[in-house]
Amino acid sequence: MINQTKNFFSILEHRVETSGSLLCVGLDPHPGELEQRNASGVRLFCSRLVKATAPYAAAFKPNAAFFELHGAEGWDVLKGIIELIREESERLGIKIPIILDAKRGDIASTAEAYAYSAFEVLGADAITLNPYLGKDSIDPFLSYSGKGVFLLCKTSNKGAADLQNLRFVGTSSSIDENGSFLYEHIATLAQSWNTNNNIGLVVGATHPDALKKVRESASNLWFLSPGVGAQGGDLETALRKGLRKDGKGMLINLSRSLSREEDPAQAAVFFCAKVKEHQRKLIDKE
Amino acid sequence: MINQTKNFFSILEHRVETSGSLLCVGLDPHPGELEQRNASGVRLFCSRLVKATAPYAAAFKPNAAFFELHGAEGWDVLKGIIELIREESERLGIKIPIILDAKRGDIASTAEAYAYSAFEVLGADAITLNPYLGKDSIDPFLSYSGKGVFLLCKTSNKGAADLQNLRFVGTSSSIDENGSFLYEHIATLAQSWNTNNNIGLVVGATHPDALKKVRESASNLWFLSPGVGAQGGDLETALRKGLRKDGKGMLINLSRSLSREEDPAQAAVFFCAKVKEHQRKLIDKE
Repeated sequence: MINQTKNFFSILEHRVETSGSLLCVGLDPHPGELEQRNASGVRLFCSRLVKATAPYAAAFKPNAAFFELHGAEGWDVLKGIIELIREESERLGIKIPIILDAKRGDIASTAEAYAYSAFEVLGADAITLNPYLGKDSIDPFLSYSGKGVFLLCKTSNKGAADLQNLRFVGTSSSIDENGSFLYEHIATLAQSWNTNNNIGLVVGATHPDALKKVRESASNLWFLSPGVGAQGGDLETALRKGLRKDGKGMLINLSRSLSREEDPAQAAVFFCAKVKEHQRKLIDKE
Repeated sequence: MINQTKNFFSILEHRVETSGSLLCVGLDPHPGELEQRNASGVRLFCSRLVKATAPYAAAFKPNAAFFELHGAEGWDVLKGIIELIREESERLGIKIPIILDAKRGDIASTAEAYAYSAFEVLGADAITLNPYLGKDSIDPFLSYSGKGVFLLCKTSNKGAADLQNLRFVGTSSSIDENGSFLYEHIATLAQSWNTNNNIGLVVGATHPDALKKVRESASNLWFLSPGVGAQGGDLETALRKGLRKDGKGMLINLSRSLSREEDPAQAAVFFCAKVKEHQRKLIDKE
């Protein structure tokens, strides 16, 4: 029981159940969104968003790039914001998982350093990773059995198709004419690599077909789905294609749709209500 | 002429011609290699290596992970080491290109932030990138026409085969039974994306067949080739398969093979002599 509650996805499931929310609050302090274009501006931007949305957030997802941009100071702010999320969670008597959106990927000895940085130095609960270098590049992260990993599967951008939609026919000489997309293969690999039950997938809400295909193949994995809002993904369609049968299994990321609102708390409440309405409809249909 | 010398690969070619070296000095301050396991230890490790090898280095390649590992302080040291390389280069009256080994890859608005961080904040001349998210994730880096990009093609690790050796049959419904490897497709894409002449490829020296295939397809692109030394790649074979017809076009990365030597300068001189011997043999054969 203790081990189970220590697992990242157990903590996430618990948070989703008690909050009734699938909202992942993306912390993307883009320079153009800041009142002051420096590390202090980043801190202000994130603090405001964290404090306003913590009661409704199933998870937070700080994007490393927008901190890294400010060099050492930005890195300090990132660590501070992760601490702030812990403090806010404690104040509210809840535990909100923190996913570091870093999309790292390197050979094992280097991956160990990235894992240490994300999990030990920054104290994140999970990280997004790029699978291009294969399993041995992911293992150093998976070996932290209490931590989570979201592998890029089908990303929300248009260019995703360049590689992720290539059709592949296996590594052997036997050719399968119904070759599957690369992103489908990632979903298959993720399941075979998931021996510690700590892998989820990034599947963009902008690609309903991909959500459907990947959900068919990976019926139990958690998806982290960016792309609703500024990138144009439709919420209802995304939920219909991507939710698990139990009405969970998806974190819908919102960044600009919250940060640009005068009242991000209200925007979060409104969004969670919309999600619940769709969830109810989908469960009724079953 | 001014534009030409400002281009990353022109600067690299010039450095390779004047130094006669293909050595890329990898700065991988792995915690296990440090006298002090902190940011000061990283600074010492890198300063020693930079000062010893600068006269023989065609390029330097700091690995972001081993700095990031030390949080904000590590990030400060990374910036300081890049400045130190500039100072050493100036002292020697040369220009040594600096490749930030970061393997980043994200959607365009985030990629802009990573590009700004690498090129403007840290002041690197080039960066390694992961191509999984497609062209629009690379564009923000390519738009810095004076800077360089090395796309991961075939990485030096064993797990590389998991994705990079999948055989693909195109995006359309027409099936080509001789589907090429994913890494070969990356080499093809890289050439079509290379309108600013600022793309190179990462091709591990541990995979001679891949070096040969990629060189056949991308006859002019520069390769960054890690894997000789600690990872077991054979230098002569790698050069035979990967060099361009003009005897250039490859940066051979050495990290541990230099940092673990009592006299890294001597090790660098010895390595450069070996490379030259192989180059001569290969050119004689032509």
